[in-house]
Amino acid sequence: MSTNETGNPTSRRAFMRGAAAAGAGALSVGAAKAQTADPLITEVQPWAQELGEGVDAVRYGLPIEYESDVVRRNVEWLTADNISSINFTPIHALDGTITPQGCAFERHHSGAIDLKKEDYRLMINGLVDTPLVFSYADLERFPRENHVYFCECAANTGMEWAGAQLNGAQFTHGMIHNMEYTGVSLRTLLEEAGLDIAGDLKDKWVFVEGADASSNGRSIPMEKALDDVLVAFKANGEALRKEHGYPVRLVVPGWEGNMWVKWIRRIEVTDGPVESREETSKYTDTLENGVSRKWTWAMDAKSVVTSPSPQAPIKHGKGPLVITGLAWTGRGAITRVDVSKDGGKTWETARLAKPGEKMALTRFYLDTDWDGSEMMLQSRAMDDTGYVQPTKAQLREVRGLNSIYHNNCIQTWLVRSNGEAENVEVS
Amino acid sequence: MSTNETGNPTSRRAFMRGAAAAGAGALSVGAAKAQTADPLITEVQPWAQELGEGVDAVRYGLPIEYESDVVRRNVEWLTADNISSINFTPIHALDGTITPQGCAFERHHSGAIDLKKEDYRLMINGLVDTPLVFSYADLERFPRENHVYFCECAANTGMEWAGAQLNGAQFTHGMIHNMEYTGVSLRTLLEEAGLDIAGDLKDKWVFVEGADASSNGRSIPMEKALDDVLVAFKANGEALRKEHGYPVRLVVPGWEGNMWVKWIRRIEVTDGPVESREETSKYTDTLENGVSRKWTWAMDAKSVVTSPSPQAPIKHGKGPLVITGLAWTGRGAITRVDVSKDGGKTWETARLAKPGEKMALTRFYLDTDWDGSEMMLQSRAMDDTGYVQPTKAQLREVRGLNSIYHNNCIQTWLVRSNGEAENVEVS
Repeated sequence: MSTNETGNPTSRRAFMRGAAAAGAGALSVGAAKAQTADPLITEVQPWAQELGEGVDAVRYGLPIEYESDVVRRNVEWLTADNISSINFTPIHALDGTITPQGCAFERHHSGAIDLKKEDYRLMINGLVDTPLVFSYADLERFPRENHVYFCECAANTGMEWAGAQLNGAQFTHGMIHNMEYTGVSLRTLLEEAGLDIAGDLKDKWVFVEGADASSNGRSIPMEKALDDVLVAFKANGEALRKEHGYPVRLVVPGWEGNMWVKWIRRIEVTDGPVESREETSKYTDTLENGVSRKWTWAMDAKSVVTSPSPQAPIKHGKGPLVITGLAWTGRGAITRVDVSKDGGKTWETARLAKPGEKMALTRFYLDTDWDGSEMMLQSRAMDDTGYVQPTKAQLREVRGLNSIYHNNCIQTWLVRSNGEAENVEVS
Repeated sequence: MSTNETGNPTSRRAFMRGAAAAGAGALSVGAAKAQTADPLITEVQPWAQELGEGVDAVRYGLPIEYESDVVRRNVEWLTADNISSINFTPIHALDGTITPQGCAFERHHSGAIDLKKEDYRLMINGLVDTPLVFSYADLERFPRENHVYFCECAANTGMEWAGAQLNGAQFTHGMIHNMEYTGVSLRTLLEEAGLDIAGDLKDKWVFVEGADASSNGRSIPMEKALDDVLVAFKANGEALRKEHGYPVRLVVPGWEGNMWVKWIRRIEVTDGPVESREETSKYTDTLENGVSRKWTWAMDAKSVVTSPSPQAPIKHGKGPLVITGLAWTGRGAITRVDVSKDGGKTWETARLAKPGEKMALTRFYLDTDWDGSEMMLQSRAMDDTGYVQPTKAQLREVRGLNSIYHNNCIQTWLVRSNGEAENVEVS
C-alpha cells in the first residue's frame, strides 16, 4: 500500500477494484511519497507569494495558453479552400460528453454568414393553410425544449474506406459534436402554419434551406419533422456561434449533420422529396454495382477510442492506464461498448460514464493495467436496437469502396511499447 | 388559424394547448403572413449572394459580436479591487442548463494564478498511511467520473437581505454555474494514500487548500469527502479555464462554492475541522442574537426567473410569453417549481425541461398569455426532501438581517405594462 518515487510498481488498492486482473501489488501510478525533495512541494512558489491576475478584463474567457493545442483543425487536402473547410473537434483532448461551441466541429458550404437577429426571418410555406414568416422574436414566444444531441457529419471517418490515412482521432472521427440545444419543436411551428397534424400526412415531406449562398437544401420526411426536429437558437446555454448557424439552425437528432441546416430561412411542406444536389450527387453512397443508396439519414452506432490515440500517446509508461472514448447511435441509445487490445480477437466490456441517452454522445472508460506491450486498440459500440458496430471488412463487404459517407467501422489504433499510437488497419 | 402583420391577435392553435385558458382565437405571436412585403423575404440578401467567412482562422471561436452583452460582469462597489472580484454569469441571457466556461461565474480571493500542468502537485497527507504527492499525469491514471453539477457562491443573492438592491438576475443570482465535470473521486485518492475506509472515520475531516496566495483553506467532514467529492480537471469536456482553477479544482456537489477549492494543492486528513478564516469570520451567518450559524455547507433549494427580468424585458407586447428560469438544490433534486404573477398570492406549476437531477440546475418554463398588465413575478422551488423555497420575510424572521450568505429567498420582479422589469420587494 505504498508507492515510491522510482516508478517501481508496488500496489494500488483502490485502482485494483476496477482494473483487470493483475498480480497482487502490481499496480502503481507512481505517485511519489510525500517526503520526496520536490521543490514544487518544499518551496513556496511564485503563484503562492504574489497576487494572480484579476479577471475583470476577461468578460468572456478563452482557454489558458497551455491548452493551445486543443483547437479545431482542418485537413487542407480534404477541401479545396477555406470557404468549404471542415473544422474538426479535438476529441483526442476532450473528456466527458459536452463539446464547447468554441472547438466544436463545423462544416459549411459557402462560408459562415453574418446574420443579425433583427434581419432573421423563417418562412414556413408550401402545403400549409397559412404560410407564415417568423422573426427571431416570434420564435422566442413559443414553448421551448432542451435536449443534448450529437451532430455528426455523414462524411466523418469517410477517409477510412480507402485505408488508414489520417493519423489522429480528431481527423478520423472529429466531425462530431454534442451540445445541449434550446429551441422550438418544428411540429409546433408547422401546426402554427395550419398543417393538419391529424390529417393524411403520408408522403408529405418538408424541404428545408438555409440563408447562406449554398442554401444547402434538404428534404426530410414528415414523420421525422413531426417527431423530434428542433428549430434551435441556443447551444450549451448561449446563442449559437456564427459558424454554428447564428441565430437559428435546424437540429435533426440522430441524422446526418448536413440536414441540420444552419441559418435556416425556409421550411416548405411538399408532397415529395425535392431530390436536391445535397441529397443526390452528394450525401449518397455508391455501391460496387454503381447503384447509390438513397435516404441514408440516420447515423448508425459507432465508437472510437479517443485516448490513447495518435494525438494522445501514453507518456507514463506501463501500469495503470485509462483507455477512454466516445460512442453514439442515431437510432436510440448506446447500451454497451467493448474494448479490444488485440485487434478484435478478445474484448472487455467498458464502463459507461452514464447510461446511454438517446442521440447523445456516451463516454466510455476501460481502467486497465498496461504491461507495456504493443496493443491493437479497438472499440465496438452496441445500441438499444441490438445493432453492433461492424468491422471495416464487414462494412466494405456490404458497401464496397466507392463510398465517402456513413463509415461507422471499428477503428484500430496501433499503440507501440513507447506509448506512441498510429492509425492502422487490421487485416 | 391565421395571423396578420398588424399584431392583432387572431389565433394560435399549437400554443393554445400549453397556454393558460384564453378566449378562442385570442393568441398570436404576430408571425406575419408570408405575402407581407418584407424585403428580408422578397429580396435576395447580401449573405445569400456572397460567400461567408471562412472558419479556418477560428481555431477556437468566440461568440458573434451581436452577443457582446452576454458576458460576465462585476459589481464594482461589491468588491474593493479586481483581485477579489466576483464575475457574475449572464443568466438573464442564457437558456438550457449548461453554462459555457467562458461566461461562467468566477470568484477568487487573490487573483487567478498561472499554473502549468507540469508544475502541478497535489499532496495528500495527515492521518493517512502513506502521504502521497500526485502530479497531473498521475491523476490522469485513476478511474474518472463525469457529472453535471451546479456551483453556487454562498454569497449569491446576499444583497437581498437588506432589500432589493441589484437590478438584474445576473447580479442577484449570477454567482452560479452548471458544468459537466470530469475528474477522479476524492475517495479513490484517499484510499490510494492508505486511508482505512473500513475503519473508524467518525470525527475525521479533510482540510483542503489551493496553490494561490489566499490558499482558501476549508474543512470538509469525511462523510462528504468519501461520498461525492471530485478532484476535477475538465469542465464541459475541456480543460478547466485558468479562472476556474486550471489545471485541477475540487468539486463539492451541492455545497457552497468557496469549498470548491481551485488550483487544489493539498488535502490533509485531520481529526477535526481546522476552523480557518474562510469558515469562521467568513462564510458563516450571524443571527440577530449575535451567534453565528456554523457549518452551513449545503445550498438550500432556490430558484429565480431569468426572463423576463430587469436585464431581459418583454419587448413584444401582450400575448404569448415564455417565462423561464432556473432552480436548484444542494440537497438532492428539484421536483417542482411554481410561478406567481401576483407576488405570491396565486401560483401556477411550471414545466420542467427535464426531471430534476441531483445537484444540477433545472430549467423551468411557464408558457403563458400575457394580458399586458403589471406582474409581480416570482418562482418557488421544491426539492425531493420536501423543502419549499421560503419568502424573504420567512427567511428574515429566522435569520435576521446580519447575514451575507445563504439567502435562498423567493425573488420578485415587478414587470410593468411596457415590459420593463425591476427588482422589488413584496411587502
